[in-house]
This record gives sequence, C-alpha cells and structure tokens, in this order.
Amino acid sequence: MTSTARGAGRGRRPGGPDTKGEILRAARESFAHKGFSGTTIRGVAAGAGVDPALVHHYFGSKDDLFLAALEIPIDPRAVVPEVFADGVAGAGERLVRLFLSVWDDPVTRLPLVALVRTSLVSEAPETLLGQGMLRMVLAPLRGRLPADEADRRVQLVISQMSGLVVTRYLLGLEPLASMPADEVVAWVAPTVQRYLDGPLPD
Amino acid sequence: MTSTARGAGRGRRPGGPDTKGEILRAARESFAHKGFSGTTIRGVAAGAGVDPALVHHYFGSKDDLFLAALEIPIDPRAVVPEVFADGVAGAGERLVRLFLSVWDDPVTRLPLVALVRTSLVSEAPETLLGQGMLRMVLAPLRGRLPADEADRRVQLVISQMSGLVVTRYLLGLEPLASMPADEVVAWVAPTVQRYLDGPLPD
Repeated sequence: MTSTARGAGRGRRPGGPDTKGEILRAARESFAHKGFSGTTIRGVAAGAGVDPALVHHYFGSKDDLFLAALEIPIDPRAVVPEVFADGVAGAGERLVRLFLSVWDDPVTRLPLVALVRTSLVSEAPETLLGQGMLRMVLAPLRGRLPADEADRRVQLVISQMSGLVVTRYLLGLEPLASMPADEVVAWVAPTVQRYLDGPLPD
Repeated sequence: MTSTARGAGRGRRPGGPDTKGEILRAARESFAHKGFSGTTIRGVAAGAGVDPALVHHYFGSKDDLFLAALEIPIDPRAVVPEVFADGVAGAGERLVRLFLSVWDDPVTRLPLVALVRTSLVSEAPETLLGQGMLRMVLAPLRGRLPADEADRRVQLVISQMSGLVVTRYLLGLEPLASMPADEVVAWVAPTVQRYLDGPLPD
C-alpha cells in the first residue's frame, strides 16, 4: 500500500488533505486482516504514517473508526438505546421495526451485507461482526435484562434476526424478501419479545 | 480437469474402477459453477466422459447425485417427512429436534456448513442451498400447509432455522453454541410452531 510505504520513512506527519483517506485505508486493511480486537488506533496510525492523536482527532474511538472504515451509515450506539428506553415490554416490536428500517434501506444495507458475508466465510472465531458490530448493537439490550439470563436471551434474539438477514437480504428468498415490513413485524416481533422476557424453559 | 480432457475425445466409455469418482468430480464442478438448475445429468455425463445412463445407474436422480457430490450423509427426503407424518401439531418441536440432531453431529454438519458458506457468499439468486437442499427439506412441509399460506409460513420457519445455523454453527456464538439441545428446543420450537400454524397477522 502506498500509505504504508510513504509512512514507513518517518512514522508521523501532519494531517494533509488525504490524511483521513489514508487512515481509513489503513483501518480497513487492519480490520480485514487482524479482526476487531487485533486492530489498534496505534497500529492504524502507524499504517497510515500519522500520529495516533490524529486518528483520534479525526475519528474518535475505535468503534467510531470501525463504523467509518466500513462505511456503515448508522451508529447503533445512537439508535439502539431508544428501543429499550421505555423498558423491555414492547421492545421486540421496536427492535424489529428498527432492524427492518436499517436493512430495508439499500444504502444502509450494502455495507452491512458486505460485513456479514465477510464474517460468515471467515473461519476465525473472533469476527468483525461479533466483536465490532453486534457488541455495539447488543450492549444497550444486555444491560436491560437479568444478568444471569442476558446472554442466552440476547443470543436467541440474534438467532432470529440473523436468520432474517440470511433469508430476506442475503439469499433474497421469496416471498419473505418482498414481504411488507408490517407483516414481518407481525410475524417476528412476538418471537423476539418471547426471547427477551418470556418464561425460561424448565 | 483431467476427466474433461479424457472424455473430450469420445464422450462415452464403459464404467471403469474410477468412473464413479469421475462422475462425482464432474458433478461437483457443475454444481459449483452452474448451480443446481443449470446442472444436468447429461452435462455431468459429458464432463466425466460417460453415458448419461451410467450416471443414473450409479447415482439415480439429480437430487441423489447432488447429495452424493456434496457428501451430505443424510437424505432429507427420507427423514423430513417423518416430522410431518402425524400432522402439523407438534411438528415445530419434531422439526427442531431433527434439525439439531443433524447439525450437532460434526460429521453431518461439515458438508452442510460448506454448502451454506458457499451459498451465502454467492451473489447468484439461485443457489445450491435454495434449489438443491432447501427444496428437498421443505417439499414435505409445504404440502402440509394451506396452499395460500404455505410459502410465507415455510420462509418464516427457514428464517429461524437459518439463524440457528449462523449463530450456533457458523459463528459459534456463545452461549448458544454450547446450549444443550433440549434447551434450544424449548426456546425455539414454539417459534417454529407458531410460524407453522399460528394465526395469520391482520
């Protein structure tokens, strides 16, 4: 990569017109090859040949950099907490509606499909999907559930939502791919609600 | 491929010791590149340099050849109908149990994971998964449901089952990946049962 070659000489330089672009390129390369946990602001800075402070200045936290590098146009940390602001009752429907509004929009969907495809073919146990994206989506949910049940309930919610991703968006199976959002909500929200606060199995 | 090169000269020859292997290689190549619908017994025979009758003789129908070529050690046409033999009541639990018994077994799981991974990264609308595998799994189910609801209900079942494939088997997300089968059944069977025979949304 040119950014790496250029930066190799010195390791830091002031922010130029294409500095943001070089940071994003270095970030994409690092996330792709080292996963989420293996990527550091320091490493991305070195890859782009800039000071780590400049990465923070332009992109904030590692989560922010992740969303920017993958060009994900929604910030789950901003929108997901609203789903649970009024508690877990009714959250199933609010979560499915939010989920559909994000995925039904082709602009938002495109980078997410790429992220999911990459993650599903990877054999690595730690994926960009799990550590990078799902963590941001699920943190506000997990805190709302009893601690000893939270992980199981959250996983079951993911099992239904990821199944929608596969069938409706990745495979585009009909008639689900063209089903009106309201009908999907009517079918799926009760499932998600039961996973959130239904009785535990014996 | 050597099989293609060898067969190109004449197009048919008697079954030799490695004829079955060459047919399987030709079938794998065709399924991978042409999908399920694009693959024909005649085309596979030509690829292996044998008479189409020999392919039928060794492998039966195209469905049989598909299962053999992908080394899928269960035949959904034999096991799935039992799930619905006693009707739709209780079929949710029987289906989830059968599904888990197949996927929890590493021997059965391996070729299925390969099939799902291949299908999910393909951009092609017609996948080996949908036309080849799901069709065989779903045919006995579809016939049990009211015709005008069958497709929707079946798709919703797939949305939950494919989500289990992604979370429990492909991504191996914990704690779902290690959850005892009985607990998965207790959580998921009611979902599948509601998709099968629950009330239609307004």
